[in-house]
Amino acid sequence: MTIQIDETLLNILGITAGVLILSGWIEQIIKGYKTKSLKDVSRYLMIFISGGSILWLAYGIIVEDIYIIGTNISAIFLMMTVFFMKRRYDKASRMNFRKI
Amino acid sequence: MTIQIDETLLNILGITAGVLILSGWIEQIIKGYKTKSLKDVSRYLMIFISGGSILWLAYGIIVEDIYIIGTNISAIFLMMTVFFMKRRYDKASRMNFRKI
Repeated sequence: MTIQIDETLLNILGITAGVLILSGWIEQIIKGYKTKSLKDVSRYLMIFISGGSILWLAYGIIVEDIYIIGTNISAIFLMMTVFFMKRRYDKASRMNFRKI
Repeated sequence: MTIQIDETLLNILGITAGVLILSGWIEQIIKGYKTKSLKDVSRYLMIFISGGSILWLAYGIIVEDIYIIGTNISAIFLMMTVFFMKRRYDKASRMNFRKI
């Protein structure tokens, strides 16, 4: 019984933590898309955290934890989206600067 | 023996993932400090991911995983640093705008 309660609690924690982390990155994507600027966001933030997420993913696969696996696959996808949006906007910004 | 190898692997994964995630946020702090601008960084990114980290911290405490605990305490601290730096720079930027 105690184990069951703990597992339910862990499930709720895992799902809610995953949803919050993904919401954060989705918010960043929406903000970037609206302003068409991500120059203040460090590219190393996405590179390093994605690297960390890949290792967490491996960790999740080894311990067979579906929440760690799901959250990290989604997070890597969202962070890479921010990374490539930033690259595109930074490039566009540099080209506009040259025109002036 | 197999368990020992797996545990060593999990330890290495946990430590490296933690170091990568913290390095990403430290890079963001350094970039923000240099440029004195964090306006492109969504405040909800820090709020939501910190919320997720607090839940991961609770998860780590329940399953007694020192890497999850350590990484999340440090990550929360670093994300709050970015959050308050952003607040300060955004405010300074608005005040400068009013002067013009």
